[in-house]
Amino acid sequence: MVKVGIVGGTGYTGVELLRLLARHPQAEVVAITSRKEAGMPVADMFPNLRGHIHLKFCEPQDAGLENCDVVFFATPNGIAMQQARELLAAGVRVVDLAADFRIKDIAIWQKWYGMEHACPELVAEAVYGLPEVNRAAIQTARLVANPGCYPTAVQLGFLPLLEVGVVDASYLIADAKSGVSGAGRKAEVGALFAEAGDNFKAYAASGHRHLPEISQGLARYAGKPVGLTFVPHLTPLIRGIHATLYARLTDAADVQALFEARYANEPFVDVLPFGSHPETRSVRGANMCRIALHQPQGGATLVILSAIDNLVKGASGQAVQNMNIMFGLPETMGLELVGLLP
Amino acid sequence: MVKVGIVGGTGYTGVELLRLLARHPQAEVVAITSRKEAGMPVADMFPNLRGHIHLKFCEPQDAGLENCDVVFFATPNGIAMQQARELLAAGVRVVDLAADFRIKDIAIWQKWYGMEHACPELVAEAVYGLPEVNRAAIQTARLVANPGCYPTAVQLGFLPLLEVGVVDASYLIADAKSGVSGAGRKAEVGALFAEAGDNFKAYAASGHRHLPEISQGLARYAGKPVGLTFVPHLTPLIRGIHATLYARLTDAADVQALFEARYANEPFVDVLPFGSHPETRSVRGANMCRIALHQPQGGATLVILSAIDNLVKGASGQAVQNMNIMFGLPETMGLELVGLLP
Amino acid sequence: MVKVGIVGGTGYTGVELLRLLARHPQAEVVAITSRKEAGMPVADMFPNLRGHIHLKFCEPQDAGLENCDVVFFATPNGIAMQQARELLAAGVRVVDLAADFRIKDIAIWQKWYGMEHACPELVAEAVYGLPEVNRAAIQTARLVANPGCYPTAVQLGFLPLLEVGVVDASYLIADAKSGVSGAGRKAEVGALFAEAGDNFKAYAASGHRHLPEISQGLARYAGKPVGLTFVPHLTPLIRGIHATLYARLTDAADVQALFEARYANEPFVDVLPFGSHPETRSVRGANMCRIALHQPQGGATLVILSAIDNLVKGASGQAVQNMNIMFGLPETMGLELVGLLP
Amino acid sequence: MVKVGIVGGTGYTGVELLRLLARHPQAEVVAITSRKEAGMPVADMFPNLRGHIHLKFCEPQDAGLENCDVVFFATPNGIAMQQARELLAAGVRVVDLAADFRIKDIAIWQKWYGMEHACPELVAEAVYGLPEVNRAAIQTARLVANPGCYPTAVQLGFLPLLEVGVVDASYLIADAKSGVSGAGRKAEVGALFAEAGDNFKAYAASGHRHLPEISQGLARYAGKPVGLTFVPHLTPLIRGIHATLYARLTDAADVQALFEARYANEPFVDVLPFGSHPETRSVRGANMCRIALHQPQGGATLVILSAIDNLVKGASGQAVQNMNIMFGLPETMGLELVGLLP
Repeated sequence: MVKVGIVGGTGYTGVELLRLLARHPQAEVVAITSRKEAGMPVADMFPNLRGHIHLKFCEPQDAGLENCDVVFFATPNGIAMQQARELLAAGVRVVDLAADFRIKDIAIWQKWYGMEHACPELVAEAVYGLPEVNRAAIQTARLVANPGCYPTAVQLGFLPLLEVGVVDASYLIADAKSGVSGAGRKAEVGALFAEAGDNFKAYAASGHRHLPEISQGLARYAGKPVGLTFVPHLTPLIRGIHATLYARLTDAADVQALFEARYANEPFVDVLPFGSHPETRSVRGANMCRIALHQPQGGATLVILSAIDNLVKGASGQAVQNMNIMFGLPETMGLELVGLLP
Repeated sequence: MVKVGIVGGTGYTGVELLRLLARHPQAEVVAITSRKEAGMPVADMFPNLRGHIHLKFCEPQDAGLENCDVVFFATPNGIAMQQARELLAAGVRVVDLAADFRIKDIAIWQKWYGMEHACPELVAEAVYGLPEVNRAAIQTARLVANPGCYPTAVQLGFLPLLEVGVVDASYLIADAKSGVSGAGRKAEVGALFAEAGDNFKAYAASGHRHLPEISQGLARYAGKPVGLTFVPHLTPLIRGIHATLYARLTDAADVQALFEARYANEPFVDVLPFGSHPETRSVRGANMCRIALHQPQGGATLVILSAIDNLVKGASGQAVQNMNIMFGLPETMGLELVGLLP
Repeated sequence: MVKVGIVGGTGYTGVELLRLLARHPQAEVVAITSRKEAGMPVADMFPNLRGHIHLKFCEPQDAGLENCDVVFFATPNGIAMQQARELLAAGVRVVDLAADFRIKDIAIWQKWYGMEHACPELVAEAVYGLPEVNRAAIQTARLVANPGCYPTAVQLGFLPLLEVGVVDASYLIADAKSGVSGAGRKAEVGALFAEAGDNFKAYAASGHRHLPEISQGLARYAGKPVGLTFVPHLTPLIRGIHATLYARLTDAADVQALFEARYANEPFVDVLPFGSHPETRSVRGANMCRIALHQPQGGATLVILSAIDNLVKGASGQAVQNMNIMFGLPETMGLELVGLLP
Repeated sequence: MVKVGIVGGTGYTGVELLRLLARHPQAEVVAITSRKEAGMPVADMFPNLRGHIHLKFCEPQDAGLENCDVVFFATPNGIAMQQARELLAAGVRVVDLAADFRIKDIAIWQKWYGMEHACPELVAEAVYGLPEVNRAAIQTARLVANPGCYPTAVQLGFLPLLEVGVVDASYLIADAKSGVSGAGRKAEVGALFAEAGDNFKAYAASGHRHLPEISQGLARYAGKPVGLTFVPHLTPLIRGIHATLYARLTDAADVQALFEARYANEPFVDVLPFGSHPETRSVRGANMCRIALHQPQGGATLVILSAIDNLVKGASGQAVQNMNIMFGLPETMGLELVGLLP
């Protein structure tokens, strides 16, 4: 039984970790911290957990995190980097669901996240937790940087093409749409129901923090720098990311076969028949990325559609998948969830 | 392993049965019928089931339903009554998720449902599948009439009060609100996103088919006829029923203690602390009825709030709960689901 | 041309006042204040106003409010009472969209609003701005207390019955449902899209601030104290209030004729045919209260359905209606809006 | 006073025409036809029109359309082409809100719309009703082909760039998102609230009927054929289209100045400051296209964001704008609407 601690459990990735771990046969959540809510039963804040999670939020110093096998950071950016060194020293493995360890180039990280990095030496060690590309390294990793939600959807969509090199890597477009839970459980006017409901808009079109994370990954798969335009949008759904990706084919290729072969053994990537349209609701609550390909009018432009639940394959589900890999458990354990439709 | 057949699997209660049964350790769906979609893989219609359900829809005559242990009718009203007699004769147990066997008084049923009943003799035998009142009878039932969604939420809210007799049974009010999935997966203008979205309205305020079903149950618990005003509303959510119930206390009573005692051993009824407000999302996807009590300004009017997922505790989850009881399985098997929040 | 000032224009009632006044032929907004946003063009915050409103938010002291004919307070509770005395002294008429002047009994107000009242003497003078009952007084009022959203929908629904005295006033029930904009444009977790979306719940079921306001009005129409149970609910729509009202008939009465006669000359109350179901979207953006009556099963329980847009007839539209009355303009001027459907 | 007839008024473009024309000072709707609903008061179907529109739907032959000044076809594709010839012969001017007269190449039209064209000779005469490019021709047109919703948003976004020739016209991408009202008021499963709500998906990614319409326009502005990839998406909002457009700059250009100059005198195109993000709700109910430009990381890829209300500037509002131009009325008459926000 893997003993799990969660730092910062009052946000959406926190409650989602709890939903998944509550039914996981080989994991036990032993502590969940929140400075602000210490003493409150977790199920008082998240009533869906009534009867499933009996813990209270506790102060970090009372959590006994050093006795855990693994600690998940479901915190804002900049927290995990303060505490990871000490936990690792105590022999605890760490999965950070925030961005502290995702970007290898410290200068780039500091530019986009607007703070100084507290432990650059750990960034080098950290393994980027996208199992579809880093499974072996994750097995032995002490520190896993869980990918962002947009980066998961976009990278899985471009990956097979860039590995093989059949598209023009200098001109890639990722038009991505996210549900509002992606903004987190923070009191902000822009995420109010009366603001985000019945409304659609782009945001950060001139530059979003997930751009360097995606570009870093794509460059690795392509073996060279890539040119990526990434435009995120806010769409009035609660959960879900849909990335619509555009690339120019440079070589004739059976792209459908390429995708099917690349993901044949991946339990959490589902390549739909050519010409399909994955729906975000088909992965609602499920740890799955559904991908479909189009080649409109048989031209050189390839359209890749990629859908995930931002809180599951885009965050907490992927974190549990990483935990399973790290501890030698079956990768799908506790994650064989059927999407909630309708 | 219980062999399960599903008649009419193209609606929302059908896909929800499949979601639940796909992960049920002691049930196996062996056939699912649809005249219209025979030959189509179920997962093509409901992509959330990809990788979980490998069946195709089949013609009823090819389904081998007579070899099943239990057959669920996830059909419109009026279908199960045509086929139940034959299945029961073949030794198959039947759970009807529609209304064919819910109302004991055939004349009343025929008035509200506008058709002649095809097998009145089975109505007498049928057990009303509300486990919280009929558990023993369900164990041995050949034919279970699975309750309606509104009736489940409303009856569980009034039940403890009427059994003990502490409210005026002649003047009960049930103001109920339903998500749009309650209207089914039928092409109707009124259920379009552009009609039902960002809109709220009552409907059938002068008389809804669930009224006689609820009244029949309440009268049984009260031991006398009741006076019930039932007003349903359509609210722009996908899943969920919230019933707000009003009753006049006739005797001093510790109603909170009354509810807690009545439901102490019920795995799927959760009595919240006095003065709470259950949210429909706390039961989204979960087989649970959450109830809370209020006594505004300490007066004689009691307010009971009752929330369920109309497709789970209000339909398919309750059907699986009934199946578990019928076949001697642990009642919670396959139903220990955590609500999806957010 | 009526010169209008608006205090506190950054909330939803503020932007709605601007939407309405931008097209009003006899009103000109000359100043709109916001301490926090002083200097920002109003249309930068509310882009729907681009090309229609060219003002900037300004500091209160720079607004020249004392030169206005009328000042609207679109502020949180407790602000208007600080500033009304001075404006009235300067000959400016005041319409408060918050609750400062709605409740005549200062002790009750202080209990529910949790603060001391800054100018009790003005409460006595203030006219409750429900034109359907106070039209004459509004014409000459210096200070108008614009009704709350729930109170508007509920009072207009009960009014004809209580005036004539055909229902049991000691047991009235108001089950009311509001869109999320009713919570205001404030950064609060509970009003986030990912919290309030696809969710339904009651709130403040044990006591809501609008209860004493409604009770005060109903008692006046009934000529005696009333017994009211009021349960508000949060529903996932942006705009709209739907009140479902229950009352017991004590006398035989043609209630449909009663309502039609009472509201025959009211431009902003629309009595639908008996047995109809008003939809909130039918009044979206419109200054209208639509009402319909039901008498289920011909019994003694009367059901009244009442729908408004909480930001229009429930707030800013009614405020403009009051302004029209105060300044001798046609009451419907600038308010002949067609609801936005779909 | 322009006498207006509407053919097929039971859909969303029909009710939207009525909403706009009800308040238009120089237009009078004299007839609205519906074979299916003949005899029903229009306001019974669309209760937002109560008190504003007193007409009943009538049979086409009883409508006296030949006595109208202008007839709008708010019908499915393929209807207007059956009736236009006769009306034109009677001296009635015609605006078709469907696609019958939009595409000049009859073969292409027939391929995409799957029917034979009933009056090809009128296609040549028809004027494409995008006032920003065809104002002069519209003034004298007998027959106006009102543009589609996607085509309006996409063409206005690319227009200035292609006219001047500063982008690579061979590789244009239009990633467009539409609210569900774009699917019309038709009973279809895919547009149900429980299907389209809380869900996001692309559709027709391999080829949508609006592609040839858009390409025809873009080729005209560019003076040469263009290469366009157009991917439409269904997003859970009621009204609104947001097009995110991508183009490669081939020449240095002050694109912001280019757009501002091109649209300086256009009352219904609003170019936002560089780097803005237009929201669909800012144009909800308004006849306006809001456009903003981004040049991410200062690279060669230009991102154009274009937002309209699909039922107003994307359909009925633009139709009224065309009517104003055709009859010499001020172009903005009846269209100075402020968007409904929130």
